[in-house]
Amino acid sequence: MRISELSERSGIAVATIKYYLREGLLPAGARTSPNQASYGEEHLRRLRLVRALIEVGGLPVATVGDVLAAVDSPDLSLFRLLGVVQGSMSAPAPAAPEADWDRAHETVRAEMDRRGWDTKPSPEAIDTLTSVLVRLAQLGYTDWGTTALPTYFDGARVIAETDVATALAAGGREDIVDAAVVLTVLGDTALAAIRRIAQAQVSLERLTVDE
Amino acid sequence: MRISELSERSGIAVATIKYYLREGLLPAGARTSPNQASYGEEHLRRLRLVRALIEVGGLPVATVGDVLAAVDSPDLSLFRLLGVVQGSMSAPAPAAPEADWDRAHETVRAEMDRRGWDTKPSPEAIDTLTSVLVRLAQLGYTDWGTTALPTYFDGARVIAETDVATALAAGGREDIVDAAVVLTVLGDTALAAIRRIAQAQVSLERLTVDE
Repeated sequence: MRISELSERSGIAVATIKYYLREGLLPAGARTSPNQASYGEEHLRRLRLVRALIEVGGLPVATVGDVLAAVDSPDLSLFRLLGVVQGSMSAPAPAAPEADWDRAHETVRAEMDRRGWDTKPSPEAIDTLTSVLVRLAQLGYTDWGTTALPTYFDGARVIAETDVATALAAGGREDIVDAAVVLTVLGDTALAAIRRIAQAQVSLERLTVDE
Repeated sequence: MRISELSERSGIAVATIKYYLREGLLPAGARTSPNQASYGEEHLRRLRLVRALIEVGGLPVATVGDVLAAVDSPDLSLFRLLGVVQGSMSAPAPAAPEADWDRAHETVRAEMDRRGWDTKPSPEAIDTLTSVLVRLAQLGYTDWGTTALPTYFDGARVIAETDVATALAAGGREDIVDAAVVLTVLGDTALAAIRRIAQAQVSLERLTVDE
């Protein structure tokens, strides 16, 4: 198909597609004349993935290039590939005083040890969680890591099993990465909203004797 | 105590405290001389709450005023108060084509009906969740609302019970609102991180035959 049809079918403007071609996010089409090229279904699929990474995942274009290189590398197992994608979508953790950080980090490690979970595949997420524990302690919520954290792990585990099953059912490597990005990022927003809905329901059940 | 001591004990700059006084977020101290006033423990507690709403909850100063009015209103039950706080922290949902919106909204309502949950106390969160379902459908994940959503509700319910119990154990109205803001907002970040950690663990368990 021509670039105009690729644009129509993907819903992405021709100028944007040309930009992705220049940045190497999309492989060149087959030349059909000095200033025309032909594109196939694999371009359409790749465009969809690029959009998921940029628009849904919020990745900068340079990082999208790294993720696509991982998708295309035959040497990378699917598990490692998902690690690359996940790491690329994690925000860096803010700095904290060393003693506070060490205490919070130990709480996270202890919880994971108790469950027999490996800490190696998710260093960025562990740092983010550690920084939340540091902030909670600074605000006076020092017990949260022992009282609430285990329940958060229980709930997250159940949800993660659904996430991984859904992503793996998506098809080939490219589709699995697309699903992992979309379901992880939109799932964060969904889960936060559902948690608020559930908080309102639990408050209603516990507090309406109040009214 | 003088404003300088209030600043020291709260960790908030004198100029910022004066700004909160001008904006009515903090009640005036007792005049001790034409240009000096004395502040009590209630000012310290209120300052802590203002900071939680602004820094952790990300609320604009005008909204903080509304929340504080709700905290101070003796007519508002704790359940309604938590509703005001929760609503003030929810982002407005993006617009979507009406038919897509109605379909997604019906999926959310059906899931809540099945559980016997009341939809009235959390309109903002329901709209946010609906907009996520619309976006997922647009990206081709049309089944998510029936396959994954129930599991998300199960996990969120367990976590919300811990959240509400922790907030209610915090003490008086002011402390409960402080806890609700801090635990809801920092809990979002914690839960997203723990979900990534759990996804990595589940992937590891399911995919390392790959290596």
